[in-house]
Amino acid sequence: MQTKKKRGQAAASDAKAMVEDVIRCKWSLTVIDLVHRGINRPGAMVHAIEGLTTKVLNERLNKLQRYDILERTVFPEKPPRVEYRFSEFGCKFLKVIDAIDELAADIAAASALNQGNETDE
Amino acid sequence: MQTKKKRGQAAASDAKAMVEDVIRCKWSLTVIDLVHRGINRPGAMVHAIEGLTTKVLNERLNKLQRYDILERTVFPEKPPRVEYRFSEFGCKFLKVIDAIDELAADIAAASALNQGNETDE
Repeated sequence: MQTKKKRGQAAASDAKAMVEDVIRCKWSLTVIDLVHRGINRPGAMVHAIEGLTTKVLNERLNKLQRYDILERTVFPEKPPRVEYRFSEFGCKFLKVIDAIDELAADIAAASALNQGNETDE
Repeated sequence: MQTKKKRGQAAASDAKAMVEDVIRCKWSLTVIDLVHRGINRPGAMVHAIEGLTTKVLNERLNKLQRYDILERTVFPEKPPRVEYRFSEFGCKFLKVIDAIDELAADIAAASALNQGNETDE
């Protein structure tokens, strides 16, 4: 049986690996952004983004489900409607993405300021 | 001159690279945790953590300053007192770490639950 400490270390390592995997993948971030904006049906996702194929979309949707970031719901209609939404864990994952976006905004602002100063000289 | 979009993309890429670099580095995370706990003088840091050498500490302190996560203050005493604290940007960086820690706690809790279920069977 794992000790509590070992479990904590393994979980920390898993969480970091998951974050790295997702933030490195342009399409995973695109899918997360789409669901965040309420575009949560596969057909609508493919239509919304130029260059996003059904194959790539399905791979990313499967990965994000494996990570328990997204949940899939099938509505018993004809044809069946499929929607994705964030799990409770996924909502926490969004906080990581939001915090990184904040850093990026700060870096961009600092870079714009530097560029402005260089132009002034 | 960079366009705003290009600057945004470069900043996003820089922010992600910085996050990856820091979360992959055990000693960077240790230093961040120490400053967070108010142990912010180099001597106290080395004493607080077994295995942390002055060389490794200085490398990490320099890196975290380059990233503008930590600020260094020298107090004009004899001998001069040196303290590190989080910059405004560093406080935002902490939110990324905190959000990843939350994910890790959830993963650990889920793993403990699974292990409990397995033991029950």
